Amino acid sequence: MSSPEPVPVHAPGALFMGEILEQPRALRALLEHDDEFARVAEVARERGRLVRFVGHGSSDNAATYGVYAFGLLAGWTAVRDSIALTVYFGAEPEMSNSTVVALSQSGRTPDVVEYVRRARRGGAYTIGLTNDLDSELAHEAEAVLPIAAGEERAVAATKTYMNQLAALALLAGHCGGQGARVAKGIRDVAAQLEAALPALEARTRELAPPFAFVGRMFVIGRGPEFATAREIALKLLETCKTAAWPLTATDLAHGPVAVLDPLFPVWTIASRDETLPAVQEAVARVRDFGATILASGDAADAIEDAQYSLPVPEPDLPILSPILSVVPGQLFAAALARVKGHDPDRPRGLSKVTLAR
Amino acid sequence: MSSPEPVPVHAPGALFMGEILEQPRALRALLEHDDEFARVAEVARERGRLVRFVGHGSSDNAATYGVYAFGLLAGWTAVRDSIALTVYFGAEPEMSNSTVVALSQSGRTPDVVEYVRRARRGGAYTIGLTNDLDSELAHEAEAVLPIAAGEERAVAATKTYMNQLAALALLAGHCGGQGARVAKGIRDVAAQLEAALPALEARTRELAPPFAFVGRMFVIGRGPEFATAREIALKLLETCKTAAWPLTATDLAHGPVAVLDPLFPVWTIASRDETLPAVQEAVARVRDFGATILASGDAADAIEDAQYSLPVPEPDLPILSPILSVVPGQLFAAALARVKGHDPDRPRGLSKVTLAR
Repeated sequence: MSSPEPVPVHAPGALFMGEILEQPRALRALLEHDDEFARVAEVARERGRLVRFVGHGSSDNAATYGVYAFGLLAGWTAVRDSIALTVYFGAEPEMSNSTVVALSQSGRTPDVVEYVRRARRGGAYTIGLTNDLDSELAHEAEAVLPIAAGEERAVAATKTYMNQLAALALLAGHCGGQGARVAKGIRDVAAQLEAALPALEARTRELAPPFAFVGRMFVIGRGPEFATAREIALKLLETCKTAAWPLTATDLAHGPVAVLDPLFPVWTIASRDETLPAVQEAVARVRDFGATILASGDAADAIEDAQYSLPVPEPDLPILSPILSVVPGQLFAAALARVKGHDPDRPRGLSKVTLAR
Repeated sequence: MSSPEPVPVHAPGALFMGEILEQPRALRALLEHDDEFARVAEVARERGRLVRFVGHGSSDNAATYGVYAFGLLAGWTAVRDSIALTVYFGAEPEMSNSTVVALSQSGRTPDVVEYVRRARRGGAYTIGLTNDLDSELAHEAEAVLPIAAGEERAVAATKTYMNQLAALALLAGHCGGQGARVAKGIRDVAAQLEAALPALEARTRELAPPFAFVGRMFVIGRGPEFATAREIALKLLETCKTAAWPLTATDLAHGPVAVLDPLFPVWTIASRDETLPAVQEAVARVRDFGATILASGDAADAIEDAQYSLPVPEPDLPILSPILSVVPGQLFAAALARVKGHDPDRPRGLSKVTLAR
């Protein structure tokens, strides 16, 4: 009998962790396409000041950020548009004054592609923001911009989410006539992230184990950091099977706070921006319920009641904070998945390209 | 010794249940204000075809419905606008072509009132939709429309949510030149609801007990019924301390499905509209994970894999389905709260008027 062929060993979470650590490089790769973003912004500026985002999952979380990036860097109104209204119900709103930014890592999300087809027919300027420049989305959209993150192999998105944020900031910056300032800001953030990653990784590995017993938690943020809250909750759901749910700091008080108890932790994203007092007030309410509090973000130290803290560097350009503040969540998910024995590279029931409608 | 004064007895959940049962009457009370809705719609039509909603909690859930009501009945673009962008970050987008509909039962939600103040200064046509015509919101907005539900005393909203849906449909109907058709539709729905309530109440009382052991669940819907999914999840959170999260049927596949197991039930809203096939596909995925499925809505019988079913009548005007489909969730929350020994009239940590920012 011959001995069996050696089976290639897959270290659970190796892809996921590798892609988290690649993110500074991914950000720099995006900046090589700065000219393309500037050119596309030129066309968008001629159309008007209304941007419609479409995407699912992490792409939709990035769109939450895009609303703030366009609002603050360009003074435009940006919205996460309803896909169902156009694709399923056949609504045909006037779109000739709209720019559409369709977000899809794979470029193959069926209803996003269909939305773009219809929006383009309705007169919108359509931009596909995708990691696959040869995808269906890239062909359907009038303009295509690269996520430029390199191939992403882990099922749970990390570097493509981060580069979507950076891409939206860069596009919004060019639309608002401050593209160079945003590009420099992203370059600086890449350096800050690179310097911070080793210590952050070690710290999340220390903090994760007690959370193995947590079945449900809230992740709260406000303003641009609501995107971060959504993305961290999604990472915990898909890689750790922790039922984590995002809420704005304000919405927490409008009902959900009633469910809290000491076994229901709350992760708070705190950044040094105009929403910090509202976030601090929300945390004070959470504390009254005895919930365990984990604070992250560049103002984590301003959350006095936090039992756990994961601070990140503060960027020079405040709107870029979410690029840094998502990282503790990614690393924490990687560490917690390992503790719980899950493989974040291949969560059960998920595949890299989601063709669900 | 004299005997002590009798203490007034509060039957837990009596207010909540009473207000659920009052809803047909509340709908009819709203229709008495049809002329006011028609007049306000006249002004909105002159402004353009962009509506911005602001609200928190149940009011924000109603806004989710409003996006579809305006899209389908008027062909307008409607969005749930970012409050933080305007109120905290001081963004001043061009609003002279916008109508703002601010939703607040009490009319006292601080950041909603502040948003209206700024939007009005920025040129928007501002409408306050409130149950208190003498509130701060009513005074700040250029026009005020009544929710007309009568005083709501239970902390968890029911009849004010339902009347917000009806009010948004009526306003959208008038904006789209079909106000009379919508008013008739609402009147018919009130009658359908009245006839259905006794059997629905009995049925939810039968179904609720096994859910006392459920710690976490998803509520899925698509299109206009995503508003229903959000509102049912919020009722379960605030009155039953069940960590219920709303998801669109499509987003479920983009990550969250990974967390499901047989102890993680999924409530599915199924209505006979263009999204039904997508909802059915999502349920098929859920079934593969062994999750228990509860189906409600007027197409509940089209969800073949459901172990539990709570059908409601089908309205003549499909866009009015969410008015009926929220009711099984309200009744189920009332029944489940009773089983778990909670008082939905006074959830711990909540008050009727939320002044949190």
